Amino acid sequence: MALEKSEKDNPLPMLGVNCPIPISEYPQILLAHGGGGTLSQQIIKKMIAPQFQNELLSPLHDGAIFTLGGTRFAFSTDSYVVSPIVFPGGDIGELAVYGTVNDLSMCGARPQYLSAAFVIEEGFAMDDLWRVILSMKAAAEKAGILLVTGDTKVVDRGKGDKIYINTSGIGTIREGVNVSSRGARPGDVVILSGEIAVHGIAIMSVREGLEFQSPIMSDTAPLNGIVESMLEASPDIHVLRDPTRGGVASALNEIAESSHVGVEIQQEAIPISEPVRGACEILGLDPLYVANEGKLIAFVAPGGAEDVLACMRQHPLGKQSAVIGQVVSDHAGTVVMKTSIGSTRVVGMLSGEQLPRIC
Amino acid sequence: MALEKSEKDNPLPMLGVNCPIPISEYPQILLAHGGGGTLSQQIIKKMIAPQFQNELLSPLHDGAIFTLGGTRFAFSTDSYVVSPIVFPGGDIGELAVYGTVNDLSMCGARPQYLSAAFVIEEGFAMDDLWRVILSMKAAAEKAGILLVTGDTKVVDRGKGDKIYINTSGIGTIREGVNVSSRGARPGDVVILSGEIAVHGIAIMSVREGLEFQSPIMSDTAPLNGIVESMLEASPDIHVLRDPTRGGVASALNEIAESSHVGVEIQQEAIPISEPVRGACEILGLDPLYVANEGKLIAFVAPGGAEDVLACMRQHPLGKQSAVIGQVVSDHAGTVVMKTSIGSTRVVGMLSGEQLPRIC
Repeated sequence: MALEKSEKDNPLPMLGVNCPIPISEYPQILLAHGGGGTLSQQIIKKMIAPQFQNELLSPLHDGAIFTLGGTRFAFSTDSYVVSPIVFPGGDIGELAVYGTVNDLSMCGARPQYLSAAFVIEEGFAMDDLWRVILSMKAAAEKAGILLVTGDTKVVDRGKGDKIYINTSGIGTIREGVNVSSRGARPGDVVILSGEIAVHGIAIMSVREGLEFQSPIMSDTAPLNGIVESMLEASPDIHVLRDPTRGGVASALNEIAESSHVGVEIQQEAIPISEPVRGACEILGLDPLYVANEGKLIAFVAPGGAEDVLACMRQHPLGKQSAVIGQVVSDHAGTVVMKTSIGSTRVVGMLSGEQLPRIC
Repeated sequence: MALEKSEKDNPLPMLGVNCPIPISEYPQILLAHGGGGTLSQQIIKKMIAPQFQNELLSPLHDGAIFTLGGTRFAFSTDSYVVSPIVFPGGDIGELAVYGTVNDLSMCGARPQYLSAAFVIEEGFAMDDLWRVILSMKAAAEKAGILLVTGDTKVVDRGKGDKIYINTSGIGTIREGVNVSSRGARPGDVVILSGEIAVHGIAIMSVREGLEFQSPIMSDTAPLNGIVESMLEASPDIHVLRDPTRGGVASALNEIAESSHVGVEIQQEAIPISEPVRGACEILGLDPLYVANEGKLIAFVAPGGAEDVLACMRQHPLGKQSAVIGQVVSDHAGTVVMKTSIGSTRVVGMLSGEQLPRIC
């Protein structure tokens, strides 16, 4: 992309620091840089995080945790650029509210306050904006979070795509809760709250015009309720993560890396519905890399696993919860899977872009 | 804009509530809906705010103030879509950091933690992303705020414009500080921290290819330092506001409306540089409506005004501070100006769009 004359005349500062990603390798941003896989990680871990180094910034986690005035807080942000903005089972407004509610929940926090910032394309139908707002209202009420501040920007036609929404949120963490992407320990039991790959396939089916006997609906949902119950059930929850972009595989890899542990999962234990499995086969997708929304992965100390699992199964969003694996001290940073046919394979981060603009 | 087939099939919920803005009047979003003037207000005040009604949501203010665990906090969000992304005196990265630092400062808060969420267009030069990051790093250091969490999304070519940045921020408010857009009282002195319309003209001059003997540089700057000094100088500061989009006129109107007071300003007292005045004349712009960045307006009780003004003039960002008017009990909600030629005129909100994508 050529810079405009004005920008050549007024270059951005270089400050004599070379970009840590060789520009020759990736001279331009690719869709895969936003896919939640290895290229996203490269930008976040190599380019951004080192510049803002501080003990609160945890590049492999979606939220920051800090103490102010004696209270522990979680703070999280996400921009939502999903296309189409309405999909089976949800829309961008709902996704934007639940997404940040869930990121806060994954920090072990009770979501309290939400901001919403809109970047709207000139020409977007006022009627559709109204519907997005109503959808956010309903979602905020369902999640029990207050929207307290916002911003609205409009960009020229052709410089956006209908509407992009950023939400940021603040939550409070009660005493005794210590959830962190760095907290996994050998012996921990890995629990997944339900069937995987649903959101990604719901979006993909619309884009590809796939028809199913009954449509696959996105699993977008607020996870603060189930997390609250889980934290009450056991103080032994070490890690919580919602496996969105990049899917279950990328989330597990991030935790394995952050916690310096190995993770072993059993393919047969991973819940997946037949229609989603079929759609993945048709589309040539590995469901382990397909995005989820209203699902979570918990790493729990062995002593607490049974209680947590029982509690999850009692919650409407966790009925199909299952133990899918465990943490080991071997192969730190690596996720391996025992497959249905008895072999063992390494499950890496998502590489490349599987499905742009999934959230 | 026609909806895609998929979105027609899966309409957004209507919930039986009619849009409070007659759709027939504005069936589509216009650039002016993001301009910070009357149309922006219509969306924010009529469509959005009533759906999320809560005592913390102050639709005419850029931040929310709340108490958690005994500490008062400010929370603010803004998306930055400025074009071009580099302009005389600044760039989008710096603007995004200072913008939220300033919004928090205008709540009387000490900015503490910042989030950054990027929406990047596929094809954006990696080199330019690197420069934006370095610029944000330098700005965060200058403002003394920690960037603690973030997000990166990539949208397809032609669905964005290089890079959009959302920043959200959290600040703490110390005891004794009570700054609010609703706080103006008759008798308050209105103080402006320096020359107006600089940022808008800096951007406009690049877009229009205007050449000046010496280029007009954006006034983007972090205002937390000067605000800290002002709050130390006097507990009598009732309102703080940075007059960005919509300029000084729109900011004063918002305060007059929120506080249910009248505001009188004196045209001759408003600081403006000769080059900016000249550029406004050439471009047919009223400088009162042109965006500022590193400037603030303070409403101060008469007893504290002298101290606050003296303190502002000692700060590098407030050397040209001046009293520009006062609050009256007449004509609540309205701003009037005594002009240089002795007449009096009402100064309304910005109507229409003066300069899209100014921040």
